[in-house]
Amino acid sequence: MADTSNLKVRGERLWESLAEMAKIGATEKGGCCRLALTDLDKQGRDLFVGWCRDAGCTIKVDKMGNIFARRPGRNNDLAPVITGSHLDTQPTGGRFDGVFGVLAGLEVVRSLNDLGYETERPIEVAVWTNEEGSRFPPAMVASGVFSGEFSLEYGLSRADPDGKTMGEELARIGYAGAEDVGGRDVHAYFEAHIEQGPILEDEEKTIGIVTDAQGQRWYELTLTGVESHAGPTPMASRKDALLGAARIIQLVNQVGLDNAPVACATVGMINSYPNSRNVIPGRVFLTIDFRHPDDAVLARMDATMRAGVKAICDDIGLGCEIEQIFYYAPIHFDESCIQSVREATRDCGFSSREMVSGAGHDACYVAAVAPTSMIFIPCIDGISHNEVEDVKPEWITAGADVLLRAILDKAEHVA
Amino acid sequence: MADTSNLKVRGERLWESLAEMAKIGATEKGGCCRLALTDLDKQGRDLFVGWCRDAGCTIKVDKMGNIFARRPGRNNDLAPVITGSHLDTQPTGGRFDGVFGVLAGLEVVRSLNDLGYETERPIEVAVWTNEEGSRFPPAMVASGVFSGEFSLEYGLSRADPDGKTMGEELARIGYAGAEDVGGRDVHAYFEAHIEQGPILEDEEKTIGIVTDAQGQRWYELTLTGVESHAGPTPMASRKDALLGAARIIQLVNQVGLDNAPVACATVGMINSYPNSRNVIPGRVFLTIDFRHPDDAVLARMDATMRAGVKAICDDIGLGCEIEQIFYYAPIHFDESCIQSVREATRDCGFSSREMVSGAGHDACYVAAVAPTSMIFIPCIDGISHNEVEDVKPEWITAGADVLLRAILDKAEHVA
Repeated sequence: MADTSNLKVRGERLWESLAEMAKIGATEKGGCCRLALTDLDKQGRDLFVGWCRDAGCTIKVDKMGNIFARRPGRNNDLAPVITGSHLDTQPTGGRFDGVFGVLAGLEVVRSLNDLGYETERPIEVAVWTNEEGSRFPPAMVASGVFSGEFSLEYGLSRADPDGKTMGEELARIGYAGAEDVGGRDVHAYFEAHIEQGPILEDEEKTIGIVTDAQGQRWYELTLTGVESHAGPTPMASRKDALLGAARIIQLVNQVGLDNAPVACATVGMINSYPNSRNVIPGRVFLTIDFRHPDDAVLARMDATMRAGVKAICDDIGLGCEIEQIFYYAPIHFDESCIQSVREATRDCGFSSREMVSGAGHDACYVAAVAPTSMIFIPCIDGISHNEVEDVKPEWITAGADVLLRAILDKAEHVA
Repeated sequence: MADTSNLKVRGERLWESLAEMAKIGATEKGGCCRLALTDLDKQGRDLFVGWCRDAGCTIKVDKMGNIFARRPGRNNDLAPVITGSHLDTQPTGGRFDGVFGVLAGLEVVRSLNDLGYETERPIEVAVWTNEEGSRFPPAMVASGVFSGEFSLEYGLSRADPDGKTMGEELARIGYAGAEDVGGRDVHAYFEAHIEQGPILEDEEKTIGIVTDAQGQRWYELTLTGVESHAGPTPMASRKDALLGAARIIQLVNQVGLDNAPVACATVGMINSYPNSRNVIPGRVFLTIDFRHPDDAVLARMDATMRAGVKAICDDIGLGCEIEQIFYYAPIHFDESCIQSVREATRDCGFSSREMVSGAGHDACYVAAVAPTSMIFIPCIDGISHNEVEDVKPEWITAGADVLLRAILDKAEHVA
C-alpha cells in the first residue's frame, strides 16, 4: 500500500464543526436540545448539507428524511461504503451523541479531498432521522425502515405527544425526500460513536473496537396485594406489594451480577399505589431492562427472572402480571468490518479494547442489510443523555482517524 | 347493684342514626366524604346537636369547635364521664370510622332516658374536631389542644391546601365556640371505635378491650446514587439508589417481623428519580412508619433501622439522609377504665380479647388529662379508610352495650 503516514484527519477542523453544530439548540448547561424534525433539527440538517456540498458531495434524501452525502469514487457502479449516525438529540442531550459520528464522516470526506485521494468505491455520509425516539417513539425508526425492520407506512405514521406525524413534519421542514428507503446494496457501514459508558475512560483506552451490540428485553410488571392501614394491620396479615417489588428489584440485580461482566439488569421505573405514608401499598408497577450480547443468556435471564418473580409473589400472596414489551436481538457485527477497525487502530497506534455496545444504535439495524461495525471513543465519566456529556479533543481526533482508515480499507475493496 | 338485665341499648335506633348521618357526604361506593369544617361537616354537626337537644342534653362548644352534649346527673358539681369520637371523615372514608363512637354515645344517652336512669355524675357525648387531619394536618389536633399537647393558637392556625385556617372555617360554619378548650376535670373518658384491622373478625371476637395504643415514629429517607444509562453502565460501576431502597424496604419489614406480634413496620411511600425505563435511578425518596406499644422497643427498632440503612448505603456507595419527622409516645390506657370495660364485656356475655390500638385516636391525647380507655368492635375484612368500610349490626349493638355499662360503672362512682 502507498505511504499512509499522511492518512490523518484535521482534528481541529472536526472540533470546530462540532462546536458550530452545537450552537443549534444549545442549552444553558452546555448541552443540546435538537428534537427530531423540529426547526432546530432542520437548521442542523441544512448546516450539514451545506458543508457536504462545499466538500463536493451530491446529496440525496429518502422518504424517511435520511440524508446521504456522496463522495464519488473511481467506479460509481460499485456499492458504497457508508458512515454516519444521527443529528437529533435527547431533550437534555449532549453535543457529541450521534453528532460525532456524522461530523467524523464529514471530516473523513474533507481529509480525503485535502489529500486528493480517490477511492475505488463511492463513500457516503449518512444522517439517520430520529435515532433518539424522544419526540416520536420508537428509537432508530428511520434506520429501521432502511433495513426493513419497519414498513415505510409505519415510520411515517409515528406521532409525537401532540399527534403530529413524522410524515407531516418531514414535509414541513422540507426533508420528505424522493428516494426510496433502503433496498440498495451497501458494501460496508461504519459508525463512530461515544461509548456512553465508563469502560474506555476507566481503562485508559482510546478506541473501543465494537464487536457486538447487546440484545435487550424490556418488561412491565404489575404486582397486586391488599391496601390497608399501616397501624392496625399485623405484619403476618399483610400482602404488601412494595415488599414484593423490593425482593424483585434484588432478584433483577442478582440476575445481572450472575451473568457478569457484560449482562445489564435494571429496574428503572417504579410506581407504588396509593403511595401514602401510613397505607400498606396494594399495587406496584415496575419495569425491567435486561441486556446481553448472547441471546441464549438473555433467554436464561428471562427464565430465571420469571421463576423468581413467581416464587416471591406466591410467598407473599401477591397477584402478578409480567409483560415483555420489547425485544432487540443481539447483534454480532461483521467480522470483516471489525477486522478493518482493528487494523486501522493498530496502524494509528492507539490503545484499544474490544467491547460490546450497551446501547442501541442505527448500526444495529443497518447490520441486517450491510456488513457493519462500530468504533467507540471514551466520554468523560461515562456520562451521556445528559447536558454535561463531554469528550477530550484527542479522543475525537483518534476516532475520526480510525474511521478514515477503516473506510479506506473497505472503499478500496473491489471483490 | 340493681337488676341490670334491662341495661341494653336499642341497636336498631343506633343503626338508623348511623344511616341518617351517612347520607351527609355520601359517596357513590357507599362511603363518606365529610372533611373537617366543610359545609357537610356543619350539616353533620347540626344533625347531631339537634338529636342531643331532643334527648334533653345541653350543648357547649369550645374554641376548637369540640362539641360537648351533657346529660345531667344527680350531682353536677362532680366531674363528668365523657364518651365520644369524631364526625369528620377521610376523603374516601367510611360510614363508621369515628361516627360509630359519637352515635354510640348518643344511643347510651337515649337508652338511659328510656330507662329513666339518673346517674350520680353528668355524662357528656363529645365530638372532637378534625380527628382525621386530611384537610388540616395534623390529625387529632382539637383533642390535642384539649389535652395541652398543642396551644390553641397552633390549633386555630392549622391551614388547608388553599390556605384557609381552622379558625376562619370554624367561624364560617358557626362552630367557633365560647368555651375554653380543656382545663377542666374529666372523671373518665371512653371511646368506642371500629378496630380498623383484621384481628377481631379473624378470631371471631366481638369486643376488643383496648389496653394500649401504639407509639409511632415516622421517617423520611433520601438516598443518592448516580443516574446513568442502563445499557452501557456495567453492573459493577453502578450506584443504584433504587437497589438501596429495595434492601431498606426488606430491612424495615424484618424489623417489624423481629418484634412480632405487635410491631408494625411499613414503607408506604416511594418516589424514584428520574423514573425512566432505561436509566439507573440516581435518587430515591421513601418513608418509614414504625409502631410499637413499648417505647423501649420502638427505640431499638429505630437503632436497628439506622444501623442497617448505613450498612446498605455504604455497601452500594449511596448518600443517605434520614429524618425522623414525627413521634407519638405509646399510651398505656387507664387500668381502672380498662377494668370497667372488662366487666362490662363479661356482664354482657360477649366474646373478647385484649388488644393494642394500631391507629391513633382522640383517646390517645385525652389519656393525658383523664383516665381513658377504648372499646373496639370488628370491621369487615379489617378494612377502613376506604369507602367499602363496613360492619355487622350486631357488632354495633354489642359495642354500644359495653359502652353503656362501662360509662355507668364510672358515672356512679363518687369517690
